Amino acid sequence: MKGALYSASPGVEVVDLSHEIPAHDVEAARLAVARYWRRFPRGTVHLVVVDPGVGTQRAALAVSSEGRFLVGPDNGVLSPALLLPGARAVALAVPTDAAPTFHARDVFAPAAAALGRGVPLDSLGPVFADPVIRRTAEAVREPDGSVRGEVIHIDRFGNAVTNLVGVRGSLMHIGQRRIPVARTYSDVAPGEPVALTGSSGLLEIAVRDGNAAVSLGLSRGTLVRVR
Amino acid sequence: MKGALYSASPGVEVVDLSHEIPAHDVEAARLAVARYWRRFPRGTVHLVVVDPGVGTQRAALAVSSEGRFLVGPDNGVLSPALLLPGARAVALAVPTDAAPTFHARDVFAPAAAALGRGVPLDSLGPVFADPVIRRTAEAVREPDGSVRGEVIHIDRFGNAVTNLVGVRGSLMHIGQRRIPVARTYSDVAPGEPVALTGSSGLLEIAVRDGNAAVSLGLSRGTLVRVR
Amino acid sequence: MKGALYSASPGVEVVDLSHEIPAHDVEAARLAVARYWRRFPRGTVHLVVVDPGVGTQRAALAVSSEGRFLVGPDNGVLSPALLLPGARAVALAVPTDAAPTFHARDVFAPAAAALGRGVPLDSLGPVFADPVIRRTAEAVREPDGSVRGEVIHIDRFGNAVTNLVGVRGSLMHIGQRRIPVARTYSDVAPGEPVALTGSSGLLEIAVRDGNAAVSLGLSRGTLVRVR
Repeated sequence: MKGALYSASPGVEVVDLSHEIPAHDVEAARLAVARYWRRFPRGTVHLVVVDPGVGTQRAALAVSSEGRFLVGPDNGVLSPALLLPGARAVALAVPTDAAPTFHARDVFAPAAAALGRGVPLDSLGPVFADPVIRRTAEAVREPDGSVRGEVIHIDRFGNAVTNLVGVRGSLMHIGQRRIPVARTYSDVAPGEPVALTGSSGLLEIAVRDGNAAVSLGLSRGTLVRVR
Repeated sequence: MKGALYSASPGVEVVDLSHEIPAHDVEAARLAVARYWRRFPRGTVHLVVVDPGVGTQRAALAVSSEGRFLVGPDNGVLSPALLLPGARAVALAVPTDAAPTFHARDVFAPAAAALGRGVPLDSLGPVFADPVIRRTAEAVREPDGSVRGEVIHIDRFGNAVTNLVGVRGSLMHIGQRRIPVARTYSDVAPGEPVALTGSSGLLEIAVRDGNAAVSLGLSRGTLVRVR
Repeated sequence: MKGALYSASPGVEVVDLSHEIPAHDVEAARLAVARYWRRFPRGTVHLVVVDPGVGTQRAALAVSSEGRFLVGPDNGVLSPALLLPGARAVALAVPTDAAPTFHARDVFAPAAAALGRGVPLDSLGPVFADPVIRRTAEAVREPDGSVRGEVIHIDRFGNAVTNLVGVRGSLMHIGQRRIPVARTYSDVAPGEPVALTGSSGLLEIAVRDGNAAVSLGLSRGTLVRVR
């Protein structure tokens, strides 16, 4: 894929964003896109290829949103950009000689290189009206005033990111366990668990100097509640 | 090694190609070279340092082939480029103060930086006439018309790449198991195995949305047969 | 973090140095800094973010030393540069809206981008007089003439790097085991252990074509002795 980019667009600068998305994990890729895509300058082209459906009839997309471009499969990974007002998507043609198992190289990279050279989005294909959208499950406010959510991502430090945002409360309940909600890791002793607002604004569960997912047994979908 | 490149050649662009070659695995490195080297534009310098023989008397090579350059140890990793007509190889001198365990930094990187700056290949050392060549084992056509080959590589998705290329048939036999030969993953149900032609033109064994090496117990050298 | 760099400094070149520092491992990061920082050309800015104390009162530093710059937390990771004569350190301000768990993006990256654009160190904050310094434990010469040291790092090949430098001797003792001190891997047979001087000048323990840490049971802190 990098070879295709450099061949199609000499002088292009290619930046690796993450080597840590598990194979086939569309949801982890979508959350990574949500964290990263608007942090880069206008004009950036994001090439997203977590694509377990390659070879099926899923569409291949190029998207323009907030001055950035994204290229990837129509499986929901591009949702964070597609959901904003003014986003536009076009369907990319799949050349008949494209490898059916490797659109990254034969479909997405050429489109990304074209966008990087300034080729207009609309010239890459017809408007695509109904892309697959994935959303983070929404947290629910309960009658007793608590807020119920879930773990949506385990990061490489073992921190468990939840779908709770802007939640006020002093204790997070995970099963029978109670974890203090605090501002930083240093509000608890080393080895102790803490819930705090992470860099994306989401409440996450950490263990100071430790691995929360391992020591608390957390995984994607674990239910949490804040009171 | 990157420090040596940037110091010797300010303004050079260095691209990481893979972080997934197992330590000391010359064969995996050779197959990666085979997949990548001609995908990059003419003038590209490939620096290949899977070098378990560092410190032995193995030669250090710089190679020119098809308008690209390759630098690395004489252990077969550069074979895909060396086997083409017109390929040329020279032997690099090893400076007396080079670390005997780290030619990447002290021998290969300076040569790659020089080639990147336009220094001619021939000025880097004497012609090297007899480099080590490794080849992929060839598939064998049996009297009954079937073709017998083997797994040569497990990729990071757990797909098992074989040495079968351009093979026609409808069933792949692996021991007692029968696997359909199809065009894409989506020709089978999720969780089912399938054999298909991968991005390099080689027949590979996959499990849709799964890990074929783990679920089918495949590893390098596993025998396969297509009828 | 990369997004912050590219946004603050269009045209900057960002180079990944290692994806192999374990989470929170300040000591491994310090040793990586020691190996790498002066290998890069003058003017290079090293951004070092192994920062388990993020959110505590630890200072955030920018350092100038030997014509290079380093930015990171005041936890000892920058010691290799701080220990040299002429090194200068300033304390970076932490913006009130910085994420308390992610100074890489909100504190260090903006400072690194500024240094990369040529902003003078002194304009980034007040002089910081007393940074945390970490040093490698020193080897000890025993009355019997042997030198006692310890394993300080296991690299990705399983080689065990010790704190012994410039040590003469013919045998390394690790518990009851005796390992020959030699010049290169090829001085022993495949599968055999050997102690040799690595690329940083430190004596390290390897197994030819194998993994010394696994097969000899070595880890950071394992005591070694050379006679």
